[in-house]
Amino acid sequence: MQFHHDGYVSGDPRVQPARGTGINRPTEIPDQVDVLIVGSGPAGMLLAAQLSQYPSVTTRIIERRAGRLAVGQADGIQARSVETFQAFGFAERITQEAYRITSTSFWGPRDDDPAKIHRTKRTDDDANGISEFEHLIVNQARVLDYFAEAALQGPGRIEPDFGIEFVAQERDDHPTHPVLVTIRDSGATKEADDAALAAATGLHAEAARLAVNEATAPPTASIPTGGDDRPTRQIRAKYVVGCDGARSNVRRSMGRTLAGDQAFHAWGVMDVLPTTDFPDIRMKCAIQSAAGSILLIPREGGHLVRFYVDLGEVSADDAGKVRTTTVEETAKRANAILSPYTLEVQDVAWYSVYEVGHRLCDRFDDGVDADGTERAPHVFIAGDACHTHSAKAGQGMNVSMQDGLNLGWKLGAVLTGQSPAALLETYSAERQVVAQNLIDYDKTWSSLMAKKSAELADPDEMTRFYVDQAEFLYGFRTTYEPSMITGTGEHQALAAGFPIGKRFKSYPVARVADANFVQLGHQHRADGRWRLYAFADASGEALATFASAAPEVLARFTPEGADVDAVFDVKVVLQQAWQDVDLGEVPPLFLPKVGSLQLTDYEKVYAAIAPRDCLPAAPKMAVGTDFDADIFDAREVSRDGAMVLVRPDQYVATVLPLNAAGDLTSFLDGALQLSR
Amino acid sequence: MQFHHDGYVSGDPRVQPARGTGINRPTEIPDQVDVLIVGSGPAGMLLAAQLSQYPSVTTRIIERRAGRLAVGQADGIQARSVETFQAFGFAERITQEAYRITSTSFWGPRDDDPAKIHRTKRTDDDANGISEFEHLIVNQARVLDYFAEAALQGPGRIEPDFGIEFVAQERDDHPTHPVLVTIRDSGATKEADDAALAAATGLHAEAARLAVNEATAPPTASIPTGGDDRPTRQIRAKYVVGCDGARSNVRRSMGRTLAGDQAFHAWGVMDVLPTTDFPDIRMKCAIQSAAGSILLIPREGGHLVRFYVDLGEVSADDAGKVRTTTVEETAKRANAILSPYTLEVQDVAWYSVYEVGHRLCDRFDDGVDADGTERAPHVFIAGDACHTHSAKAGQGMNVSMQDGLNLGWKLGAVLTGQSPAALLETYSAERQVVAQNLIDYDKTWSSLMAKKSAELADPDEMTRFYVDQAEFLYGFRTTYEPSMITGTGEHQALAAGFPIGKRFKSYPVARVADANFVQLGHQHRADGRWRLYAFADASGEALATFASAAPEVLARFTPEGADVDAVFDVKVVLQQAWQDVDLGEVPPLFLPKVGSLQLTDYEKVYAAIAPRDCLPAAPKMAVGTDFDADIFDAREVSRDGAMVLVRPDQYVATVLPLNAAGDLTSFLDGALQLSR
Ligand SMILES: Cc1cc2nc3c(=O)[nH]c(=O)nc-3n(C[C@H](O)[C@H](O)[C@H](O)COP(=O)(O)OP(=O)(O)OC[C@H]3O[C@@H](n4cnc5c(N)ncnc54)[C@H](O)[C@@H]3O)c2cc1C
Ligand SMILES: Cc1cc2nc3c(=O)[nH]c(=O)nc-3n(C[C@H](O)[C@H](O)[C@H](O)COP(=O)(O)OP(=O)(O)OC[C@H]3O[C@@H](n4cnc5c(N)ncnc54)[C@H](O)[C@@H]3O)c2cc1C
Repeated sequence: MQFHHDGYVSGDPRVQPARGTGINRPTEIPDQVDVLIVGSGPAGMLLAAQLSQYPSVTTRIIERRAGRLAVGQADGIQARSVETFQAFGFAERITQEAYRITSTSFWGPRDDDPAKIHRTKRTDDDANGISEFEHLIVNQARVLDYFAEAALQGPGRIEPDFGIEFVAQERDDHPTHPVLVTIRDSGATKEADDAALAAATGLHAEAARLAVNEATAPPTASIPTGGDDRPTRQIRAKYVVGCDGARSNVRRSMGRTLAGDQAFHAWGVMDVLPTTDFPDIRMKCAIQSAAGSILLIPREGGHLVRFYVDLGEVSADDAGKVRTTTVEETAKRANAILSPYTLEVQDVAWYSVYEVGHRLCDRFDDGVDADGTERAPHVFIAGDACHTHSAKAGQGMNVSMQDGLNLGWKLGAVLTGQSPAALLETYSAERQVVAQNLIDYDKTWSSLMAKKSAELADPDEMTRFYVDQAEFLYGFRTTYEPSMITGTGEHQALAAGFPIGKRFKSYPVARVADANFVQLGHQHRADGRWRLYAFADASGEALATFASAAPEVLARFTPEGADVDAVFDVKVVLQQAWQDVDLGEVPPLFLPKVGSLQLTDYEKVYAAIAPRDCLPAAPKMAVGTDFDADIFDAREVSRDGAMVLVRPDQYVATVLPLNAAGDLTSFLDGALQLSR
Repeated sequence: MQFHHDGYVSGDPRVQPARGTGINRPTEIPDQVDVLIVGSGPAGMLLAAQLSQYPSVTTRIIERRAGRLAVGQADGIQARSVETFQAFGFAERITQEAYRITSTSFWGPRDDDPAKIHRTKRTDDDANGISEFEHLIVNQARVLDYFAEAALQGPGRIEPDFGIEFVAQERDDHPTHPVLVTIRDSGATKEADDAALAAATGLHAEAARLAVNEATAPPTASIPTGGDDRPTRQIRAKYVVGCDGARSNVRRSMGRTLAGDQAFHAWGVMDVLPTTDFPDIRMKCAIQSAAGSILLIPREGGHLVRFYVDLGEVSADDAGKVRTTTVEETAKRANAILSPYTLEVQDVAWYSVYEVGHRLCDRFDDGVDADGTERAPHVFIAGDACHTHSAKAGQGMNVSMQDGLNLGWKLGAVLTGQSPAALLETYSAERQVVAQNLIDYDKTWSSLMAKKSAELADPDEMTRFYVDQAEFLYGFRTTYEPSMITGTGEHQALAAGFPIGKRFKSYPVARVADANFVQLGHQHRADGRWRLYAFADASGEALATFASAAPEVLARFTPEGADVDAVFDVKVVLQQAWQDVDLGEVPPLFLPKVGSLQLTDYEKVYAAIAPRDCLPAAPKMAVGTDFDADIFDAREVSRDGAMVLVRPDQYVATVLPLNAAGDLTSFLDGALQLSR
């Protein structure tokens, strides 16, 4: 964490100084905004946190609810999401309070007595060490709390405008703010939120414990509103992002629909405090029995458990009947499945009947008009607004956040003039494919989960699938196709372990100036900057060529008067031991002067190190399994050097030889706009 | 982190539900309090955080300053302090924002040109892997912020009463509250604090950046007050703890003095944002040159650096002259020492002339009256109020916090009736020895530091001393002598790696219920409970004996109606692999029912595991250097089993055989009081 570069600041360094629109931010929504985010779920809150790093941009986020989410919805946090939290500065804290999945148990019918279950297998959750981050379980509400903190503590000081509802939007030809948005007071109050939920679920006396969960209703259901006589207000936005969930009004106002499954499979989802003799109550379990199946997810705090209890196929003429299944019935069925073990529910924290619907929108922006003519997109949808799916693979919240991460910096870059408006077209292009892949995967997984064990091809089918798909499940298989911000890969061989289009996979290195052994990837904060890594050649000749050519190339895209590293954070990774590096010999490119006091930034010079050499001085480091491989070995980086350019969202943009300043220039000419 | 056991709670789990005196805590100080803490430095704030865990105790903490400390004073955080932070729940967070020391550089005069320095050596900071925690540098102000948060978020909801000054106290024979304390409004305002500091230091235009640092003045100097005409108020306390720093009024009112050195050595201490070509500016450095010596401490945030610049011996007739040394003079001297490198100070965050005085009080309580007659202590002093010393070994803040940790649970235990009042006598007995040892050590270190290199016996003298003394420096050498709470060690051989009287040294184990690989010691939170670890024998027979005898023994000291683990948190460590443990076979003692819902606590059953087997599933774990040793091997625990009883302050109380229920009873009879 770097701070004090503009002088000493007292207090929590996570609270960045307010700047631009963050200074005296008005409580009322202005008549014109740059970005209007609709909805404060995971997609919307990530966007808010990201755009808070662009304090010259006026961003507002409206939310129909009266206040923060209190309970319910998603809880599965993939390692990729934790990696993202790290970039926003709260991975350590949320990990501390979350449940960590390390192992999954599989239970099935006993051979001698199929009415009773026994444990058939355990698998390591991350048997292959895919990530240095954990696989966590924690309430979506807490994820949102942390993003809210990041949004508020960023220079833009962004806070949701609660109790405000998006009604409609239309595009016109206003020269700067072409989206005309109608909003109104949502009529929501804390009490009304609670009561609506209690009525909708009818499950729990203490309404305050429950939160409205629209995702449980089919996307076609009507949206309860506070009556149509409430006055509306019109504001203008340059861009609108609909993060308003499965029944998105923004999507509807764009004339788009979710297409996909009509057939549903229903699950009773209950968060309970149980008493049980089932020994794996604190393990993630997939339980198949003659009486049905359960996905059991232990939760944060050591006592709470989530059960996904199979309620069977929903027939076309069900007309919402399955949704009347009570928590008592669900608990009863759970008991039957768990036999010979018993489950006594002491307290229900949240309950919902969840119907699985795999649905997808064919594009995530308004980049074509009603006549099918292409135009610059100004309205986007993200998260459940463009893709819904089973919760079983635990993907929804995670993918929604990655939608936000993909779009946030692009909005920031275009609105600050760093990149051409065409950059925004890559959002739908990149994320729609990801969503399609997710749904394909999710279908396979859900149908496997729903099968009774007798129907499985062989008993190991699910286990194998599960382990094979770990990289996918953890959120690391996303690969963006070549575009203006993703290279084509002629020089991929120079750094085979940093595949172009995939997210930059971290590795331990030694920071030379202070001999701290750190994860290189974790130095990449969600601050909207590009990262350019120069992996040095052994002799340093190619590095010298790079260091003399790069400043001029990069300066063209860096605004006059801004810090030299305002747009590109350039770091070097040297091959020699950190003790052998003479900082006095390192090119000034890697020791830039920053801030109003023009202090030297010493945190850009790294040396390769084998994890073994991090011990015992830094035994706390995340290490891979090969203790002897340094980053050049582990990531297959050429010992003749390479440069790796990484996008602000942590995806590898391109790999080039160190002497390819010309290729770098061409690439950047496509992705950015000249600043001077 | 465990929560939700009384039902689902939304929001930050670090905020514990308010209880007892924490519910509707009055803003005004009541006329009678149980504990009055004077001073909100490290000793006082730790005490406040600890006593917030005893919500039946009325605790107030008064502080003369108008508000929180903003800058200055200590910054060196030993691993033992970070371990303590872990017990209070904020180690991860403070580590994230701190500077981590991994290596120390030694610089000395060049052989060919003694006017110029060169690097003579580097040493690993923790070459022997003494702790899994880091050695940190972070402003004392931030440490206090985190303790303030812990105090406020604990059930007792304790907050400092700022702007209130302790004037005097006297003992009388009031039956319950024998300390009569005079307090008054300190007259402090934020502006006055700043102005007083600016006047005292005269160094920096921006007074707001500076904080009053009384420790820099000799302990005999007069204390500036807001005038004596301010009205006073008298309140009564059962116990008073003077954490009011080097010039403690509480100490003075007890009639005690600090004895020790009269001769001082002066150092100019400056926190600066520099520009320099000195390559080790981000490393901890001990620099000896012909022009003098510097201890250089890089600080949090990547830019700030602290210099301790040697200002030489202070002659007896100096009369404060050395304290007029300006920051410009100090910076000039630093430049001379650093030659051939140069240092340009861009900004001074804080500056002080620090005079080294090794002083110690002969006892830390009022357990003897003016006539030398022994009596039950009711007034205590902690931290700098009882020992002052050079900042060079970076011990002051750390030892002060350990004073607080030693005293806090004792006050809580006596005030809740858990232990007899005699327990409080062990505070002075235990901590006075520690302070004496510290001062002895510190003298050696300071005089070494002050020596010009030519005066050293051999060039490696300091390096060797430094490395040898690492365990001491890190805060782990403290060993309490046998007493009512520390055993005599007949059975020490059963667990040689848990020396009685030293703090329980953690090691990785597998938590059986959720297959989480955790540090056993880190499960010991600062909640005032004793820990009883049953290390199982291979066959489990001795464990069974223990499990059947222990509940009755422990119940005698556990209040009726309280959770069974309210006083003793009993954990088992099994020898077999976690996969081979059948939770159904584990004695109920280790799976207690807790909270209002009587939910099972699954986090007390552990299995030994070799660090190697934690990989890759838990590569993030802190591991020792021997990857194949499980906790029995590493801590030399007998494979025939052992019980290890640990005090609430993490120090090992005693080691016994598993079948020694009788010995356990006798020990507890001495340390605690029967509850039923
Ligand atoms: C029972 C259940 C279990 C789940 N389990 C998992 C899991 O284990 N893992 C996982 O990853 N995902 C899971 N999900 C899915 C997950 O909750 C969603 O994928 C995720 O919340 C989507 O995030 P989002 O930001 O797109 O939308 P949402 O979280 O739905 O947020 C939309 C927000 O927009 C607001 N809004 C809606 N309309 C308007 C309007 N007109 N004006 C203003 N505001 C509006 C809503 O109030 C809401 O706050 C689960 C879902 C359910 C129902
Ligand atoms: C320049 C310098 C550098 C140092 N560097 C280090 C270091 O690197 N490492 C290290 O461990 N230590 C260091 N120390 C020492 C460290 O600051 C002290 O040891 C530590 O602060 C002592 O903590 P304490 O709680 O005992 O007292 P203090 O921190 O002194 O707190 C005493 C508090 O009591 C208040 N108070 C005083 N009188 C009254 C009254 N009558 N009524 C109400 N309130 C009152 C004061 O305002 C103050 O807040 C350094 C000290 C100095 C001056």
